[in-house]
Amino acid sequence: MKNLALLTDLYQLTMLAGYHACNKIEQRSSFELFFRRLPFQGGFCVAAGLEPALHYLRNLRFEDHELEYLKGLGIFSDDFLSWLKNFRFTADVDAVAEGELIFAGEPLMRVRGRLPEAQLVESALLNMLNFQTLIATKAARLYIASNRGSVLEFGLRRAQGVDGAISATRASYIGGCTATSNVLAGYLHGIPVRGTHAHSWIMSFPSELEAFRAYATLYPDSSTLLVDTYDTLGSGVPNAIVVGLELKGRGHQLQGIRLDSGDLAQLSIAARRMLDEAGLEQTKIVASNDLDEHLVANLLSQGARIDIWGVGTSLVTSRDEPALGGVYKLVAAAGPSGNLEPRIKISSNPEKITVPGEKDLWRVYDEQGMMVGDCLTRAGEKPDFKTPLGVVSHHPHFAESRRNLMGHSARALLQPVMRQGRLIPEERPSLDSIRDAFVKNLETLPAECQRRANPESYWVGLSDDLFTLRSKMLSEAQVPRT
Amino acid sequence: MKNLALLTDLYQLTMLAGYHACNKIEQRSSFELFFRRLPFQGGFCVAAGLEPALHYLRNLRFEDHELEYLKGLGIFSDDFLSWLKNFRFTADVDAVAEGELIFAGEPLMRVRGRLPEAQLVESALLNMLNFQTLIATKAARLYIASNRGSVLEFGLRRAQGVDGAISATRASYIGGCTATSNVLAGYLHGIPVRGTHAHSWIMSFPSELEAFRAYATLYPDSSTLLVDTYDTLGSGVPNAIVVGLELKGRGHQLQGIRLDSGDLAQLSIAARRMLDEAGLEQTKIVASNDLDEHLVANLLSQGARIDIWGVGTSLVTSRDEPALGGVYKLVAAAGPSGNLEPRIKISSNPEKITVPGEKDLWRVYDEQGMMVGDCLTRAGEKPDFKTPLGVVSHHPHFAESRRNLMGHSARALLQPVMRQGRLIPEERPSLDSIRDAFVKNLETLPAECQRRANPESYWVGLSDDLFTLRSKMLSEAQVPRT
Repeated sequence: MKNLALLTDLYQLTMLAGYHACNKIEQRSSFELFFRRLPFQGGFCVAAGLEPALHYLRNLRFEDHELEYLKGLGIFSDDFLSWLKNFRFTADVDAVAEGELIFAGEPLMRVRGRLPEAQLVESALLNMLNFQTLIATKAARLYIASNRGSVLEFGLRRAQGVDGAISATRASYIGGCTATSNVLAGYLHGIPVRGTHAHSWIMSFPSELEAFRAYATLYPDSSTLLVDTYDTLGSGVPNAIVVGLELKGRGHQLQGIRLDSGDLAQLSIAARRMLDEAGLEQTKIVASNDLDEHLVANLLSQGARIDIWGVGTSLVTSRDEPALGGVYKLVAAAGPSGNLEPRIKISSNPEKITVPGEKDLWRVYDEQGMMVGDCLTRAGEKPDFKTPLGVVSHHPHFAESRRNLMGHSARALLQPVMRQGRLIPEERPSLDSIRDAFVKNLETLPAECQRRANPESYWVGLSDDLFTLRSKMLSEAQVPRT
Repeated sequence: MKNLALLTDLYQLTMLAGYHACNKIEQRSSFELFFRRLPFQGGFCVAAGLEPALHYLRNLRFEDHELEYLKGLGIFSDDFLSWLKNFRFTADVDAVAEGELIFAGEPLMRVRGRLPEAQLVESALLNMLNFQTLIATKAARLYIASNRGSVLEFGLRRAQGVDGAISATRASYIGGCTATSNVLAGYLHGIPVRGTHAHSWIMSFPSELEAFRAYATLYPDSSTLLVDTYDTLGSGVPNAIVVGLELKGRGHQLQGIRLDSGDLAQLSIAARRMLDEAGLEQTKIVASNDLDEHLVANLLSQGARIDIWGVGTSLVTSRDEPALGGVYKLVAAAGPSGNLEPRIKISSNPEKITVPGEKDLWRVYDEQGMMVGDCLTRAGEKPDFKTPLGVVSHHPHFAESRRNLMGHSARALLQPVMRQGRLIPEERPSLDSIRDAFVKNLETLPAECQRRANPESYWVGLSDDLFTLRSKMLSEAQVPRT
């Protein structure tokens, strides 16, 4: 669907109509999108979903049939609907690139514009960034668990809807998967596609051997034979070896065998031995069957000889935690002077109190290029990370916890991606370059922060200026009001 | 997206090419789609996803640009691609209507046609039916937990992708939700939309009272005021009452207030008392904040005075169980004579052994119209449920467990929906009629099967003929083969 203008919660539109009626449509404001907690009790997230979100923003307009529908709801004035007809998204957007590592409390995106346009897009931006960031992170966990191995995404049949599948495939690839079974996702996003045959292929032939032979004849250089239809070690692997040797005799190579049930550790060890003894050392072993990052790590620790992992449901639905709780909060609004002034949202839950004002996000590296810590500053601060006491950074919640953040180099993660509704740069990064960036970024994250369980917390602090601003606004805001 | 021909796993296409190469493209076959286990440890499922699935089947064809893409993969012959260019889905489909209650092991759909066409559609059908059935079931659990109350679906921002949101909204409505916040889903499917304002609306005014007043002026008959921005009982509810009385004085009515944090039981009880004392008995109380069916039931058991429930993440992602494990299995294939013959799939896990052959699905009712039990028969059997020993039905897994299934009436749940690729009837049921059907169907399910926790198992048996067929094929299949 090209135009997703109506992909919003109704209250965004009723509020827009309110801003319109109250002459607030030109008021300047700034919102930031972030999540408060890392998923999976993990140590990091992988940013994803930005390019689809930019596509949405760029094409945002209300068509006549959509305006007719809104009119039919009976709650919007003709004046407001006329205004909506001419609505275009003309805000400035800064964002963290896809494939970057990102942590709790860090802005993934900032939208600065007129209050209505910045408000309207909340629901769709959250939908896209929440889900793709979640799945890219899940994929990265599998990538790490498999020792940077080859993980194939196989989840189409259990994914949450058509686009649940396609976006999950895209995000999985960003997070390190090597290919997908989903042909439409491959077509739309240029992701490598992989696939072999199902049990039903075997069952449609009089014998397993005939089924294997027919398949290998058709795909002499790209056959992966599913060996568990009848008896994995008793018939499946031996029959695959027969066909593998026939292929070899004709100058081809059996690409792989696939195990889809049973004790994958023991079966893979035995199958590897059988293949090697037959001289089929190049034939890979693919395993699947309700895998997740914990099972992958567990199988490897048992000495499983698995080269390629097929992962479905757990990856595409992020089964153990199927939603990322990203939020989109007002951080600044025009004051009486018309200039943007920081805003804070108070809550009885201290972790829900926002960090006010527009921010920059800095990542500091040591001489080896490893990540040392991140620092949120007020937008426009010029922090000096090279001088010993140059940057004092404060833990966002525990006032006593602070660090002098110092390093060999630093870079700003929030980068302009839209100015007045226009993409910059116009030419956006390819999905392959995003995936490559992720793979490189991951190598700069200390190993203890990559751990699947009980990772070390990576440092994310607030600069002195930002911390002081927050404390000041917090005290002021806690004066009772009516 | 109109055409989803590429929405399939690559192995379906490599197998199709194989069937094409082996001259099996005309072979007749029959597949059934079912799930093996009820989700949420619940007592039933609500069938959903059929109409989108039929839309997919009807529009299934490969466009030139898609064929170009497939050609570029370098694994398909020109012959096969030409055949694919003319491919149309011309199979017969029988299915359980959306809004029907359905149980483990029962076919949701049967596809009878040429082997390639029946095989190709597996992934997309599973994607659509698995997810929508899961979410309709989750919604039904909320509907029951709220005592058939009003549940609004609010999950867009946390849903799994754009269509993850839209399909979830559609399925939630089938399962008893009364409305959604998702405007695009409302537009596409004719679902009622609801929404009020966010905390950011309040924060954009100098005071809460001014914010409420501005909103109520714009929507004098449809305002629900969010009362927890500063202090729910100290300022939110009193300010809402001021505005509610102003509206009343002008002949309007404050529709509702919304609680979005804190102790929803105590707050709703206190707010109800305050509203009633002010003479605003008609003003409803809406509650939201990470609700699910367990919290809803728990709040009601505490005496909460909540009229309307807003549910997001738990509903649209089915957070505690985000995938339904539906499968699609070959149940019959043409034998040497060309006639369809039953097929069975064996597994070392007895629960994964399929029930062979095409089946009918009968639901038996007592004199009060309550469901007594379901019976799977061989297709075409004419079971007599009115005579005392007319139908002996067997538990599918425990040979010793059987029942004489007898009742006042019975109906067949699997109904023809496509013949040779054409819809029958052409005119499909509206979403509202599907939702109405669900609401009526639910009242025929015994209360003990509706329980949220530890429900009674509803009886689903196999007819004597079907059971005998299965036993016979099982013994034959267990003869070793090579």
